[in-house]
Amino acid sequence: MPALRGPTTYDNEPPRNPLLKVNAKVPFNAETPRSALIDAYVTSVDMFYKRNHGPIPVLDDSDRYFVTVGGLVQRHLAISMDDIRMLPKYTIVATLQCAGNRRTAMSKKRTVKGVGWDIGALGNAVWGGARLSDVLKLAKVPEYTAVTEAGGRHVEFTSVDVCKEENGGPYKASIPLLQATSPEADVLIAYEMNGKVLSRDHGYPLRVVVPGTIGARSVKWLDKIEVNANECQGFFMQKDYKMFPPTVDWDNIKWPSRRPLMDFPVNCAICSLEDVSSAEWGKKVIIRGYAFSGGGRGIERVDVSVDGGKTWVEARRYQKEGVPYVSDTEDCDKWAWVLFELQTEIHPPTDIIVKAVDSAANVQPEKVETIWNLRGVLNNSWHV
Amino acid sequence: MPALRGPTTYDNEPPRNPLLKVNAKVPFNAETPRSALIDAYVTSVDMFYKRNHGPIPVLDDSDRYFVTVGGLVQRHLAISMDDIRMLPKYTIVATLQCAGNRRTAMSKKRTVKGVGWDIGALGNAVWGGARLSDVLKLAKVPEYTAVTEAGGRHVEFTSVDVCKEENGGPYKASIPLLQATSPEADVLIAYEMNGKVLSRDHGYPLRVVVPGTIGARSVKWLDKIEVNANECQGFFMQKDYKMFPPTVDWDNIKWPSRRPLMDFPVNCAICSLEDVSSAEWGKKVIIRGYAFSGGGRGIERVDVSVDGGKTWVEARRYQKEGVPYVSDTEDCDKWAWVLFELQTEIHPPTDIIVKAVDSAANVQPEKVETIWNLRGVLNNSWHV
Ligand SMILES: [Mo]
Ligand SMILES: [Mo]
Repeated sequence: MPALRGPTTYDNEPPRNPLLKVNAKVPFNAETPRSALIDAYVTSVDMFYKRNHGPIPVLDDSDRYFVTVGGLVQRHLAISMDDIRMLPKYTIVATLQCAGNRRTAMSKKRTVKGVGWDIGALGNAVWGGARLSDVLKLAKVPEYTAVTEAGGRHVEFTSVDVCKEENGGPYKASIPLLQATSPEADVLIAYEMNGKVLSRDHGYPLRVVVPGTIGARSVKWLDKIEVNANECQGFFMQKDYKMFPPTVDWDNIKWPSRRPLMDFPVNCAICSLEDVSSAEWGKKVIIRGYAFSGGGRGIERVDVSVDGGKTWVEARRYQKEGVPYVSDTEDCDKWAWVLFELQTEIHPPTDIIVKAVDSAANVQPEKVETIWNLRGVLNNSWHV
Repeated sequence: MPALRGPTTYDNEPPRNPLLKVNAKVPFNAETPRSALIDAYVTSVDMFYKRNHGPIPVLDDSDRYFVTVGGLVQRHLAISMDDIRMLPKYTIVATLQCAGNRRTAMSKKRTVKGVGWDIGALGNAVWGGARLSDVLKLAKVPEYTAVTEAGGRHVEFTSVDVCKEENGGPYKASIPLLQATSPEADVLIAYEMNGKVLSRDHGYPLRVVVPGTIGARSVKWLDKIEVNANECQGFFMQKDYKMFPPTVDWDNIKWPSRRPLMDFPVNCAICSLEDVSSAEWGKKVIIRGYAFSGGGRGIERVDVSVDGGKTWVEARRYQKEGVPYVSDTEDCDKWAWVLFELQTEIHPPTDIIVKAVDSAANVQPEKVETIWNLRGVLNNSWHV
């Protein structure tokens, strides 16, 4: 019997905060309600969104728990929790975001397949652990390796959970070897979230955290790290989490025609003001929310309109209170979301829109129709 | 008298191809006409766009030409052409694009300041030279340095040309030190373009090539490399090449409120079919053009519509003929544009639109109005 195992039934799920908005009970998928999303810059562990594809794994014996490191590397290893803890510890503030965040709004335009998510399928946490680049050095893969001597180009992570989509097999995903071996890409093998031991819902005892990349690549309940010639051929890399043009539907889909999603586009959403429709003429309101982009790109600007896009005002951006946020500088957390706030007077009928610009000057598309896709991923249209 | 000097008059300009579309005679600014833009994957030296801020510098004595490397580094140097040529030589296929590309179309919505450019203020070339990371190693700055012991965080490049905007001083710009010292960022100190000695118009004897970054940071006629604590305070970093919201105009502009542009957003344009208005009903036409994104992000898709956006068809993408382009793989030139082609039947009235998606799923905005800015930079709206 393995030390870490994926149950086939749901009778050993961890306790969850009843304030979470449950989008699916089994597997358990739940998001942070709008109002709680930006209560703090760092999301609490229990209010952080939960995204699962099977029952939560159980660690029966931590002494016998090892992660194997193998594939096209010079030295094969089995590393224990102690081995991981002996590597230099890094703490990274990183936002994880499900590629399906804001799917519900896309679905309203035309039905898409997938769990419905409002705007809360993301959260910001302080992750503590070893760098994957340090782990791979133990397997004799040097830093900044794009391809190993044996031809390895991708690092595949395998979990132990039991996923229907994998016909009962475990969840898996891969990232390019160069990203995995670049220290400044900050890919972690994490054992802590917000300073505490990882909770079962978030991948206990070890999970991968791939900052700036869709959440689906940050594999939880880690069993295996493998360096392979090709990218992972699992369901969630090859038959899911790809973005198709609006013209592609289930009768004409060709999965190999598209690349697995990795990096993601600029996005933002209003989290306050669920009650804006009740606001009075001339009343001062505070509009708050989050903005976030992929690949470590910062947020250059957040524009807010309260008159349906006729006029725009720039919101104040911040990460830590009292520290002005300036993108791409040493003072900012490059992998973390940016919160925004604007105090303004509203004159009903009020039509509030928010859109962000990232540090590569990428902007959000105005209409969800133009980016509609059958899997409902990466909805980053203007948030209204 | 310096070996390389910037004249104050325009009586020693190099010869130019008369087929270039001249947007300003002095300083000489000219672009590639649409029809010639995608004649080849690699743009010829003489048809490559020319972007200048003063008269073209003159090298009087190549034996006395040195580039100084200084600032907050352990060892100060003066390096000759021979020193540069003794470093390992790299050849990189990289597209340079002026941040003002497609400015004319933005100007039509509301006047902007700056040289007018159609869609040809970019070109793709094979650049040969030493890596900046290798040059900086000579000055005792190791690879992957974000900050030197003495506090240097930015690498500033200074030219010798005489720019009105700098009150007669030379053009200058900086990039972050981490980018400069990361070998895979491919920042070059280039002495060759398309296999030949750099031409005077393109920076002879030495220029910087910063792939994936707006052309304004690829300084020509290099005189000085300096590692500084702060980013370059020159005109083109601080009072130009920044993107403001549409609400900012010349009477309320605050230059320090915005960051200098570096990385740029996904863009594409149709280069064939200047005569599409004359096409007949049911006729087969070939629509061709380029697509390009910043930061080394690939092109995931190019969508073409011939009915004003009602229906879309995906175009074929390629770099080298016969090699299918797949973004972010070893076979593609990550810093280079991607050409596209679609053969389709048109039914006038024809309303052709093209838009691209990059590998971070960033899309182009539909309307130029939403990204209008007073300097007319980074117009990446749908191309019609
Ligand atoms: Mo996800
Ligand atoms: Mo430029």
